[in-house]
Amino acid sequence: MSAGRAGYTVGIDVGGTKCLGVILDSDNQVVAETRVATPAGTDNLVEVLAEVSTELVRIPGEVDAMGFGLPGLLDTEGRFRFAPNLGGPVEAPIAELLSERLGRQVWIDNDANCAARAELRIGAAIGVQDAVLVTLGTGIGSSVIMAGEVQRGAHGMAGELGHMTVDAHGEPCACGRRGCWESYASGSGLRRMARTAAIAESPSQILVLAGGDLENVRGEHLTRAARDGDVVAVEVLDRFAWWLALGLANVSAALDPELMILGGGLVADWDLYEKPLQKHYSALVLGSGHRPDPAIVPAALGERAGAMGAALLARDEFASR
Amino acid sequence: MSAGRAGYTVGIDVGGTKCLGVILDSDNQVVAETRVATPAGTDNLVEVLAEVSTELVRIPGEVDAMGFGLPGLLDTEGRFRFAPNLGGPVEAPIAELLSERLGRQVWIDNDANCAARAELRIGAAIGVQDAVLVTLGTGIGSSVIMAGEVQRGAHGMAGELGHMTVDAHGEPCACGRRGCWESYASGSGLRRMARTAAIAESPSQILVLAGGDLENVRGEHLTRAARDGDVVAVEVLDRFAWWLALGLANVSAALDPELMILGGGLVADWDLYEKPLQKHYSALVLGSGHRPDPAIVPAALGERAGAMGAALLARDEFASR
Repeated sequence: MSAGRAGYTVGIDVGGTKCLGVILDSDNQVVAETRVATPAGTDNLVEVLAEVSTELVRIPGEVDAMGFGLPGLLDTEGRFRFAPNLGGPVEAPIAELLSERLGRQVWIDNDANCAARAELRIGAAIGVQDAVLVTLGTGIGSSVIMAGEVQRGAHGMAGELGHMTVDAHGEPCACGRRGCWESYASGSGLRRMARTAAIAESPSQILVLAGGDLENVRGEHLTRAARDGDVVAVEVLDRFAWWLALGLANVSAALDPELMILGGGLVADWDLYEKPLQKHYSALVLGSGHRPDPAIVPAALGERAGAMGAALLARDEFASR
Repeated sequence: MSAGRAGYTVGIDVGGTKCLGVILDSDNQVVAETRVATPAGTDNLVEVLAEVSTELVRIPGEVDAMGFGLPGLLDTEGRFRFAPNLGGPVEAPIAELLSERLGRQVWIDNDANCAARAELRIGAAIGVQDAVLVTLGTGIGSSVIMAGEVQRGAHGMAGELGHMTVDAHGEPCACGRRGCWESYASGSGLRRMARTAAIAESPSQILVLAGGDLENVRGEHLTRAARDGDVVAVEVLDRFAWWLALGLANVSAALDPELMILGGGLVADWDLYEKPLQKHYSALVLGSGHRPDPAIVPAALGERAGAMGAALLARDEFASR
């Protein structure tokens, strides 16, 4: 590698609450990273992404390409259409806006597709033909790998497994619909279940850990109580694992992957629900005992997968211009 | 084409109630067809399939290859593992049993995958990259086309969209689980809804058309009553269309196809529920109004799609040996 033109790429993963940017070198090593809060509104988002990119570029002095992962429905023309966790409709030509602002071509994809691309290339799914990636954060992000490739569908919008209805008349979802998988097997689903348990069931540490304020109950209070052996908290995690397993069983019915990669913030507590998840999955999957089980594993690249994948996307597209 | 070696293939589609066999010539024309009742038990099934194949072969005198479409989970080693509509577990090496009985190599796949292969090659999905086929019969059969190919998944079991849970604590399904899409948006789902409506709601013609016997109420009584303008029957069909739309909306969230092909017996009454289906789909799909709609169309090849696809599979595999 020659200095200054070593094939650096910028990748930025836009989440519901924060944006994480990285610089990837040509050996796929992260040489710098930065994070900022995700602002409200498209104009502000473009401005923040442009500032972060510009700041990151200063580190190597020059980059080949820039990629962005966005949470929601993008179309194949680079238009950001709909993002439940950014407030719903967006309808902005985000690729064009970023290109104009930065004075260079940029590449975009759904955030979970970016993460799946990274896991496929340099993470948990190397050489795998059929897999899904499911990120458990505030919501559920996901991506479908079939025939060894991230599948974007006919209009760029495939892989929204979190918005498959699993409970037709169930809980309201951030997307405006009801009973989505994301309404149960995500951080927001877990928080809702924790709050219900904190007031409705036997005495537990959940509310105590939240300072006695029900509105303050978060997933971390639940997992901390569960680690202390709190029976109610363990039950709530079991219910969470049941819902997670239900959706993964749906994925097996539809796509029969060999590998399911779980990412996102909730994977930090993977040890707390791995066993109930496997147990419920086996009970819930179609044809249980008459089919091979997929491997269900935590993501290899952790929370940087999305940003790394956005950089890999940009590098690939830049190379194939 | 020379006489006697014109490249004929046999394809047999095994359904829950009947087996439909065809001979396909090298121009993909059906030159003969036959149907028999599906017997109970694997040994009987192998015997009946062997007899039907042998009978079909007599017509051209010689065939290149034979293919079979089977309703349920097959693995990539040709083992028939699990079939909800044939009573559950099967666990028979069906390809091997048929090969031994017929004294020749045979090829097998899931019945809906066979139908999708036929629609992709010579039907409604020519040139399409991302599509699903959904057959509405006693149950729901289905197949996923991505990257222009029928996707079998890692273990040969992809495409069981009918067994995705859409109502977590809902109606029992033939597969032993609860709340599967098939429990609602299929012939058996429609029959259940028709029976409930026939006794629970306002007076309707449904029960009259069934001879006053509730146990005798079938989907055809419902559709006939609906054609006569029976309000209750029209309402039941609207509910059926809602469940069908809910599952198709799930498919769009997961796979974002450009085309959804509906096949199976219930498509005969497509005109009765096409409009409510489209209306409910638009209301239920993620990001409605912010995404392109897929085309939802009836299958081009009708009830012979599965048998034709089994023959095409056999021809392809025979040619690439």
